[in-house]
Amino acid sequence: MNQAEPAEAMLARIRASIERQRMMATLGVELVAIERGRVEMALRYDDRFTQQHGFLHAGAVASVLDSACGYAAYSVMPPDAWVLTVTYTINLLAPAAGQRFTMTGQVVRAGRSLVVCRGEAFADGAERPFAAMQATMTAQYDRPGVSG
Amino acid sequence: MNQAEPAEAMLARIRASIERQRMMATLGVELVAIERGRVEMALRYDDRFTQQHGFLHAGAVASVLDSACGYAAYSVMPPDAWVLTVTYTINLLAPAAGQRFTMTGQVVRAGRSLVVCRGEAFADGAERPFAAMQATMTAQYDRPGVSG
Amino acid sequence: MNQAEPAEAMLARIRASIERQRMMATLGVELVAIERGRVEMALRYDDRFTQQHGFLHAGAVASVLDSACGYAAYSVMPPDAWVLTVTYTINLLAPAAGQRFTMTGQVVRAGRSLVVCRGEAFADGAERPFAAMQATMTAQYDRPGVSG
Amino acid sequence: MNQAEPAEAMLARIRASIERQRMMATLGVELVAIERGRVEMALRYDDRFTQQHGFLHAGAVASVLDSACGYAAYSVMPPDAWVLTVTYTINLLAPAAGQRFTMTGQVVRAGRSLVVCRGEAFADGAERPFAAMQATMTAQYDRPGVSG
Repeated sequence: MNQAEPAEAMLARIRASIERQRMMATLGVELVAIERGRVEMALRYDDRFTQQHGFLHAGAVASVLDSACGYAAYSVMPPDAWVLTVTYTINLLAPAAGQRFTMTGQVVRAGRSLVVCRGEAFADGAERPFAAMQATMTAQYDRPGVSG
Repeated sequence: MNQAEPAEAMLARIRASIERQRMMATLGVELVAIERGRVEMALRYDDRFTQQHGFLHAGAVASVLDSACGYAAYSVMPPDAWVLTVTYTINLLAPAAGQRFTMTGQVVRAGRSLVVCRGEAFADGAERPFAAMQATMTAQYDRPGVSG
Repeated sequence: MNQAEPAEAMLARIRASIERQRMMATLGVELVAIERGRVEMALRYDDRFTQQHGFLHAGAVASVLDSACGYAAYSVMPPDAWVLTVTYTINLLAPAAGQRFTMTGQVVRAGRSLVVCRGEAFADGAERPFAAMQATMTAQYDRPGVSG
Repeated sequence: MNQAEPAEAMLARIRASIERQRMMATLGVELVAIERGRVEMALRYDDRFTQQHGFLHAGAVASVLDSACGYAAYSVMPPDAWVLTVTYTINLLAPAAGQRFTMTGQVVRAGRSLVVCRGEAFADGAERPFAAMQATMTAQYDRPGVSG
């Protein structure tokens, strides 16, 4: 864990990285909350991103959960690291039915190069998640000119 | 496996279902090939769907691999079934760098209600995949008015 | 969820099933606690079950986490169901170093036929898990003579 | 990939590492074949390792698949590396019913520090696998006195 970096600086580098993710803008993702080790994002229903039964496509859900987990991991990495998703497993527990979807990513344990996170997706303020993710992120340091 | 259904009918129900997936149209996904137990789709680079380093976002890759696996599973299900993703694991083996991405989904084994598939994503005709998926799909039969 | 069954009956069918798992006896697994939706088991270090560096083999850890998740799922299933593991993902966050390993399985969400659980493994009373599991279990009803 | 090392030396370091895995001896695992990027192991039915219905416990299957994938990864790593499992996903496609189980691990793609493999388990010479694994392994270099 990187606890020396001021919270302000950590928030700034996460916001800067999210702004560079065109996919987040295309999906209309809103950044709800960041703390060290935990990120919350929200996504509104949009019929451009639906599957064949009119619910949100799992791919849209997975995109945001992946980003929430990735930024939760990034929040505990050193400032000169950048973050990549190694692998994740997503369970779709129920259709993504609703208007507003809240997605959380939380660090389970952070090692030197690998950070494991869990994500959960909730519809319209429901208490039980409709999707759950377990994700493995990696910190990279070595590519000049690449950050975030 | 459902081998009694004519190939024509199987192709027709898959095409009809894909057409109802608005997410596929939004991503600009092209259906390349369908045979029983195997589906191939293609996705072009589009900077609306990028991550922070300018590569295609893992969420776009996962969306198409998930659909390729889902339709591979659907191709071996009885005509009155519809298909849902239960869970998948995706490994991102390299950045999604390229112009045209080919995604395959293939049935590993089909049971009565669960079908397990593997997916692979290739960039610009490369031989080695840049992403690999293992997915569990379920056949559903019981919701009136729902199909595909 | 199956909330009509008395807790006593639920405990009895879980204990009966565990007693039939020879693998649990071979590993020396201890049943620590059962409540509806959550099961805790313990495993002692044993050099018969080590990997090449002298730590507990991931297979031993996974066996017990899988059983803890499976019985957590089983605890919320109807009495005539039996439980099978469909798939799980395990992250090994640190070596399994210690003398006594506590493994918990907890239901995230239970559907009609599929139950998703999360498992965590802790060494010697540590607060942070050294392994995390996300598991998909299925309830089966239809094989005469098979239960648990 | 590490192609400079002679095949003999690669076989020798894999055999030496397997011999240090007490879990493999306890399960009675047999090393069937090794080539660079692919390892095959076999396991005989043993009622010490069964689940509640008398089939082989998923934990025994997962232990051997994990080792087959781990050694497939190890076979392409530099001689001074040692291998650790980061995470794997296993699908149990059918009960492990049979007398002799063959497990294969194969490298999908090897990066500098992470190697992704796929494993399959077959019962009594069947053509279709009864279990499938997707595994992420890591090469470690930095702990003095640790190898394999």
